[in-house]
Amino acid sequence: MTKTKCFNEMGVCMKLDEAIELIRDLDKDSMKKAKMKLDNLTKPLGSLGKLEDIVQRLAGIFGCASPMVDKKAIIVMCADNGVYDEKVSSCPKEVTSSVTKNFTRGITGINVFAKMTGADLLVFDIGVDDDLSFYSGIINKKIRRGTDNIVKGSAMTREEALTAIEIGIDAMGQLKEKGYNIVATGEMGIGNTTTSSAMAAVLMQISPYEVVGKGAGLTSDGLNNKIEVVKRSIEINKPNCNDPIDVISKVGGFDIAGLTGCFIGAAAYRIPIIIDGFISSVAALAAIKIEPKVRDFIFPSHASAEPGGMKVLSAMNFEPIFLLDMRLGEGTGAALAFMVFDAATEAYNKMGTFEDAIIEQYIPLD
Amino acid sequence: MTKTKCFNEMGVCMKLDEAIELIRDLDKDSMKKAKMKLDNLTKPLGSLGKLEDIVQRLAGIFGCASPMVDKKAIIVMCADNGVYDEKVSSCPKEVTSSVTKNFTRGITGINVFAKMTGADLLVFDIGVDDDLSFYSGIINKKIRRGTDNIVKGSAMTREEALTAIEIGIDAMGQLKEKGYNIVATGEMGIGNTTTSSAMAAVLMQISPYEVVGKGAGLTSDGLNNKIEVVKRSIEINKPNCNDPIDVISKVGGFDIAGLTGCFIGAAAYRIPIIIDGFISSVAALAAIKIEPKVRDFIFPSHASAEPGGMKVLSAMNFEPIFLLDMRLGEGTGAALAFMVFDAATEAYNKMGTFEDAIIEQYIPLD
Repeated sequence: MTKTKCFNEMGVCMKLDEAIELIRDLDKDSMKKAKMKLDNLTKPLGSLGKLEDIVQRLAGIFGCASPMVDKKAIIVMCADNGVYDEKVSSCPKEVTSSVTKNFTRGITGINVFAKMTGADLLVFDIGVDDDLSFYSGIINKKIRRGTDNIVKGSAMTREEALTAIEIGIDAMGQLKEKGYNIVATGEMGIGNTTTSSAMAAVLMQISPYEVVGKGAGLTSDGLNNKIEVVKRSIEINKPNCNDPIDVISKVGGFDIAGLTGCFIGAAAYRIPIIIDGFISSVAALAAIKIEPKVRDFIFPSHASAEPGGMKVLSAMNFEPIFLLDMRLGEGTGAALAFMVFDAATEAYNKMGTFEDAIIEQYIPLD
Repeated sequence: MTKTKCFNEMGVCMKLDEAIELIRDLDKDSMKKAKMKLDNLTKPLGSLGKLEDIVQRLAGIFGCASPMVDKKAIIVMCADNGVYDEKVSSCPKEVTSSVTKNFTRGITGINVFAKMTGADLLVFDIGVDDDLSFYSGIINKKIRRGTDNIVKGSAMTREEALTAIEIGIDAMGQLKEKGYNIVATGEMGIGNTTTSSAMAAVLMQISPYEVVGKGAGLTSDGLNNKIEVVKRSIEINKPNCNDPIDVISKVGGFDIAGLTGCFIGAAAYRIPIIIDGFISSVAALAAIKIEPKVRDFIFPSHASAEPGGMKVLSAMNFEPIFLLDMRLGEGTGAALAFMVFDAATEAYNKMGTFEDAIIEQYIPLD
């Protein structure tokens, strides 16, 4: 658990296989103890619904019946996408770099929600098409300045995909060392609803029509073009749906690959990790397809307004906890979920028990 | 707006008709200004989804483009129900009184969430079958010690229903005077999923089978009995579905009636008010049936795990913002929504604009 020492430039300590090797089951004993405590709180059995599920799963992850999620981080993976050239976005490409810089200036949506929830924001340049090395607030893990255009060939090499995944794994190792006990995921990358739609269509083996949406604000013509681009990218690259790393490298992006690594690292280092919207959920799906045990460490937040959002969550057997029609990305939906985790642990730790209460019985009489 | 001066024992200042008379439309001008500001924040247009809807509606309610929701209250209406005698609940009847007392001892779920969200908790005894007058933390508005059994006749007289509604209206007037700018609704009353199911079936003109659920923990036999009880209560009382006050008085309860008054009072005094679960949503539906303009002032929170929960929300054209499978009542789901309101106003007030940002354009190019 203390294997990751380096977080320096380009330093990647743990290989994907080693991380997968580290993943253990949830601690059933701690989960059982948490359930017993929950059932003794002064409320009808199970009436806190998913808040009770959250507490039990946290207990299983930490191996401790009194789980805490008091040191929060939000990881935002930023990268450009070569498929931008196919006119799949309503925004200028430079917005990736501009918003990445704005994360360091405290004016974006995720800055506001990070401050509000008491979370630290970690911004990773994993492939932005700009030199951001002068920004001390941006962690430089740039693989290169954006992927290649997926309608002309692979987005990246398999080695690059593995490097991006291992950057994510390493990030979680570093957070573990620093005592973080809950992480939200986010991303920034113009064109990344196209790459994630392509990955989603392949990983779920459904038509691009069912997953592609208007992203940040495409017109209907723009949407039709985007669907065609996703179809062509799959036809040309023929990604192997049973090999998620092949799917990432052929039609994904550095941001998605980095997040896939975060989800795997979360399982390896036993840190609960929260999905944000569509792009983040595709990264989680890829991680679960690489190693199904990873699912135990992942929590959903909102359902993205992108049409594929709910489908990808369902494919992982998750239901969102928020229905907010948000589609901002940046980790904004995941950060809001911190508040629900706080509510769950507060209720668990501060509600009275039947012994404290005047009630003799608040349980079925039958 | 400053008509309500009395909050003393049994003091009810404003009649239902007077309150309805006070209700005005949302301020379209303030809503337009809020929309302009939202559209200038550094994010894709509309990408904060329902958070943007919340901000705009708050602007319309307050008549101010910079709405604040910094003084929060949770109103919990507590009452007993004569229909308890039909074995419709899995809990002893005394739990109503016990939990009402526990609200003053800080150990219930809603106490934890009130503290966490910085809200004040106001507990109303509007009809508990116990003498709670010695508890200074309980506001004594008792009409009488519980309603009559709805399978044998009316729950209450029409006059009592009006009194209960006016207690709710008056409560909102008092909160307005004290500067509260957002209110969550809650209830406590063993047997009140039965009364609210009966009201829901009548108000939506659907079969009791479609709305009755297991409440705090009935068995399947218990559920069948509860459905029969609801059917009989409707057959015997023949409530007029076009007269919500008739429905409340014949098959409702004092808690529901009080909450209906809160929703109407919220509209009269222009305070945003949040629905909790099934029972609270039935009270909101009754309020909207009394005066449709009330809807503008109401916000949904979670979808109750009760089967009728989502149906009642849909009947008001609301979609929940949380899917948490909670069924605790007490206002717990509504209180969690405070956090989403805080997130909405924080984003609105603290995100940068395009002028602040380095971005020239983050809007459709088309």
